[in-house]
This record gives sequence, structure tokens and C-alpha cells, in this order.
Amino acid sequence: MNQPPVIVLVRPQLGENIGKAARAMLNFGLTEMRLVSPRDGWPNPAAGPAASGADVVLAEARVFDSVADAVADCAHVYATTVRKRGVTKPVLTPEDAAGAIHAAAGRSAILFGPERSGLETDDVALARAILTVPINPDFGSLNLAQAVILVAYEWSKGQGLASPPATELDPPAPQEEWEGMFGQIDAMLERSGFYYPPDRVPTTRRTLRGMLTKPGWTTMELRTFRGVLSALEGKKGPRG
Amino acid sequence: MNQPPVIVLVRPQLGENIGKAARAMLNFGLTEMRLVSPRDGWPNPAAGPAASGADVVLAEARVFDSVADAVADCAHVYATTVRKRGVTKPVLTPEDAAGAIHAAAGRSAILFGPERSGLETDDVALARAILTVPINPDFGSLNLAQAVILVAYEWSKGQGLASPPATELDPPAPQEEWEGMFGQIDAMLERSGFYYPPDRVPTTRRTLRGMLTKPGWTTMELRTFRGVLSALEGKKGPRG
Repeated sequence: MNQPPVIVLVRPQLGENIGKAARAMLNFGLTEMRLVSPRDGWPNPAAGPAASGADVVLAEARVFDSVADAVADCAHVYATTVRKRGVTKPVLTPEDAAGAIHAAAGRSAILFGPERSGLETDDVALARAILTVPINPDFGSLNLAQAVILVAYEWSKGQGLASPPATELDPPAPQEEWEGMFGQIDAMLERSGFYYPPDRVPTTRRTLRGMLTKPGWTTMELRTFRGVLSALEGKKGPRG
Repeated sequence: MNQPPVIVLVRPQLGENIGKAARAMLNFGLTEMRLVSPRDGWPNPAAGPAASGADVVLAEARVFDSVADAVADCAHVYATTVRKRGVTKPVLTPEDAAGAIHAAAGRSAILFGPERSGLETDDVALARAILTVPINPDFGSLNLAQAVILVAYEWSKGQGLASPPATELDPPAPQEEWEGMFGQIDAMLERSGFYYPPDRVPTTRRTLRGMLTKPGWTTMELRTFRGVLSALEGKKGPRG
């Protein structure tokens, strides 16, 4: 049995909804909540009453300044969106995602966006896959806590029943190592004049980040790749 | 495909919760709600705002004096309870029940009890089976709308809308394009002195080839990566 997924609420607006999400989580055995820049700060007095007793989840919630920081120790990141974005990532149902999380080696994080607007493209870019709840095409109106409860519910089904995770496989490197590698190649490309014209830089960066996240390289493979980059830059250091 | 199940709210207390249940239903394509002796009468002005647009469900809701009347036209009745009662009936998960409903001939009804107390023994007695959502034994706190949404969600999986949107992901690039890219990076690494010591070169090359094949990049992504390599080598050519 691998670790339960981390629920990451990205820029949540209402404390009440954070409380409801905590309640939804604990009903299905999820306890680790992370908050990225909650609009009204943290702790939020409106969260507790809405949690209906799931106080332990709120008390242990951790706050981060960015999505990247919040998922730094996670090997798998899922971005929950209502509709398909123009991104080329696999789209999973909650059931698919629960299966993947149970089968995977390494920690998983599931991102949920702000109540009104959902995740932004840059948040989604950090994720390896998109998680979408298939809903009525004529009436899609899931709120934050409802999205959380469906995902938590599906995950809970695999408890006790899931086949053991493939522990012999090395898990993908944690997110912070990806960020480190991306910082290195980004700086090199900056110096080489790759980022041109300026108005296309954000798109190009996003494309590159998406591509370079795709492999799911292990820590060792990432280290090799950074050795490759250093070699290409003319540093002969150990290639790891 | 048989008829969707009827959602029967038995003696619901708050209009707001009736509205939320309607919203939960419509998200997953259920439209037929029946109310048994709602505490505050019907229609209830608090229901509409909580339905967030699922007004059609509320407008068509029918009111009955008894559970027996409400399910008179239904061939299969499921009673939703949080915990198993001392009754000798089959106990199904939402998933089991959804399967049974899809497989069954005849109309199905699913009973949900009042917010505070749940269904009474006499209500449960009318049902052929009990539907229980398996929850955290140390924290069971599902509200009415949450119980409805989980049941509706499971039912919807058997419907067409349950399949995730077609992702039309681009396939990985053909092998010859991988070879081309590998030839490029290999030559660059040769020139940079990366391949050292000589006796480890075959292993290093194999590791690199394995790593660089792992992403399953598309033709476009491979082209971008070759653009990156060219930029790093100081050629400013188009990055594709």
C-alpha cells in the first residue's frame, strides 16, 4: 500500500470551502491537505465550522506560496479541471486516477483550483495528467468540495483491495528535482538566445516544461540528464 | 438502457439541502426527484438558490405523503443508510447498486432519509436492498447532497457521459526520428568530452538512449528538443 494522495487547494477563496473539502477528505480517509496562497490567509475562522469535525485535517494543513513548492516532494501530480484544456496531457477520470495512484510508486498530489475560475494554465503545466469528472454536458456545476469528495471516494475504494504498488520500480524524481533541472536548461537557453521572439517566450517555456515533465525520469536519470546539459555547456564535471 | 433511477428524499428538513441534492443529481444526469413530506412544505424558497441552476429538477419534483406512495411505480427500491441496520437485506455499495440498476428491468428508486436522523426502520423495510457508502469508520459525516452525488456519480458511469473526453493525443514520433535526435546529441556529447572513460561509453550510451526514448515525445516535441540542442550548440536556426 503506498501513501495516500495529498490534496492541494490552489488559491482557494472561501474558508468555508476549505472546511468542506477537509470534511470530504476525511470521510474517505484522506488527511493531508496543502493550501497554495489561500485568498483570505490561514488559518481562516470560517473553515472550522464547515469541517463538521474534520479539524485534524485543517490543523495539519500546510500553506505554500506556489504550486511548485506545494508538490515539491511528489512524484505524480494530477490537475483537476472541469473541461479539457488545450494541453496535450492524458485525461483521466477519478476512477482512472485512483487506479494510477494505487499502482504508482512515489507520492501523488491532486491539484484543485479556485472556486470561481479553476486552475490556470501554468498550474496545469506542472501536472503529468489531467483529472476530469465526467459530468452532464448540459449542466456542469460541481463545487470544490464535491470535486474533492468524488476523487477521495474513488481513491478509498482501492484501500485494502489494491494490488501492492510496484515498489521495485524506481519512482519518478520528486517535483523539486524537475524544477532544478528545468531551471538549469532554462538559464542555458536564455543565454543561447533560444527564447525569441519575446512574445512567444511564455508559450515556449510552457511547451518545454510540459515536454520535460513527460518522461517521468527517475532521480538517477534526471541527474544523468543534468550531466548531459553541463557537458553541453562545457563543464566537464562528474556526470552522475 | 433502462430508465434512470428516481431520487426520493424522505422528510427532508432544509430547502437548501433539497436544492443541493437537485444540483448533485443534474450534474450526473438524474432529473426525477420525489419528496416525501418535506418538513417546511413545498415549494420552498430556499431550494432554488442552492440548486445553482438545476431548477428543472425542482420544478418537476413531485410531493407524496408516504414512502409507499412515492415508490408505487418502482420495481426496485434501495434505502440509503450510513450504517448497516439490524435488517436482513443485501447491503450494496453505490457501485454495486449502480450496476444492479443498470442491469435491472423496471424502474428503480433510491431513498435518502432526513438530514439529522436518516431513514427510519419502517422506511428501510420498504426497500429490497440497502445502499451504504463505505466511509472512514472513525469519521462518517456525509451530508444529504454528498450521499446523493456519490450515488448519482456511480450511476452516471454506466451512461455515455461517463467516458472521458477523447484525448486525441499525438502519437510518439516514429523510431527514425528518435534515431536522428539521438545521433545529434551523441555527436554533441562526443565533442564535449562527455564520453569518458572509454570503457564505460557503451553503457553510458545505452543509458542515455533508454532515457531519451522514455518520454514518448511526439514529432513536434522531438523537433522542439532538437531546436533546444541546436541552440545550446550555438546554432540559432529555427527551433521548429
